[in-house]
Amino acid sequence: MQSDGPTNAAEDQRPLLYLEDLPVGRRFVTGSYVMEAEAIKAFASQFDPQPFHLSEEAAKATLFGALAASGWHTAAVTMRLMVESGPRLAGGVIGAGTEVKWPKPTRPGDVLHVEGEVLAVRASQSRPGRGILSMRSETRNQHGDVVQTMTTDLIILCRGPAE
Amino acid sequence: MQSDGPTNAAEDQRPLLYLEDLPVGRRFVTGSYVMEAEAIKAFASQFDPQPFHLSEEAAKATLFGALAASGWHTAAVTMRLMVESGPRLAGGVIGAGTEVKWPKPTRPGDVLHVEGEVLAVRASQSRPGRGILSMRSETRNQHGDVVQTMTTDLIILCRGPAE
Repeated sequence: MQSDGPTNAAEDQRPLLYLEDLPVGRRFVTGSYVMEAEAIKAFASQFDPQPFHLSEEAAKATLFGALAASGWHTAAVTMRLMVESGPRLAGGVIGAGTEVKWPKPTRPGDVLHVEGEVLAVRASQSRPGRGILSMRSETRNQHGDVVQTMTTDLIILCRGPAE
Repeated sequence: MQSDGPTNAAEDQRPLLYLEDLPVGRRFVTGSYVMEAEAIKAFASQFDPQPFHLSEEAAKATLFGALAASGWHTAAVTMRLMVESGPRLAGGVIGAGTEVKWPKPTRPGDVLHVEGEVLAVRASQSRPGRGILSMRSETRNQHGDVVQTMTTDLIILCRGPAE
């Protein structure tokens, strides 16, 4: 496992972004992450213990035809890439809800990255100081194939008078 | 980590279900799973390294107020419960897409289970022998609070002439 984004908040060079800093249409691209076969099996044995995620041999007789990562593993790796090298949101990357599709499986050795875009930004009526940021993202492999699309509503802080 | 569902296919007593076996309205309840603080931190350090998922102390100053599991961890545990003690689908539990909401955080010590219902079943026009099963599920804690809702389209096999 590895990714090329910063992991330590103190070293993080990315600007801290508030609701006001994220116009609709703003795009971003994350660093990348190699999905190793051993990591695919380790995730699956904890969270999605099915033959096509656990064993090259057993996967052959299934719909996937060969070892494939759990969609939840692809989603979790997408989250890691977003947290480490996506937009650095004030208050953190906190999802309220999300819609995810997995058009193609993630395979061992795939090098994933995430490309995203701000779809909508709105201030909360009921909670002053907060808002919702809708973001669409595509998780792509080294061939440019989309292995996951996601539309997520994130909780975002407004820039206060002091910031 | 533990859950009380079967883990070994050979020991699995649940009937194998095809598209024809899953009427709309069919309900199910899974076994349960205790979300330990150490597991919350371990998942977060791999996939969602943010202060509110990594440290009781650091979480205090955040929107969560105390340590909370990554939503993706709750989703992954939901998947495990479904695979181990939800409906045993022929071909496996294979999602094409899903819509997830996290109305409340999952906290250390929470005992989660999943309650679900079949929303729709349709045979595929383009791929004979397959169909899509739409399922709604709620992941609840020991107090009955819903920590996750999910609506998922699963790929399901039709019962062939031989089955």
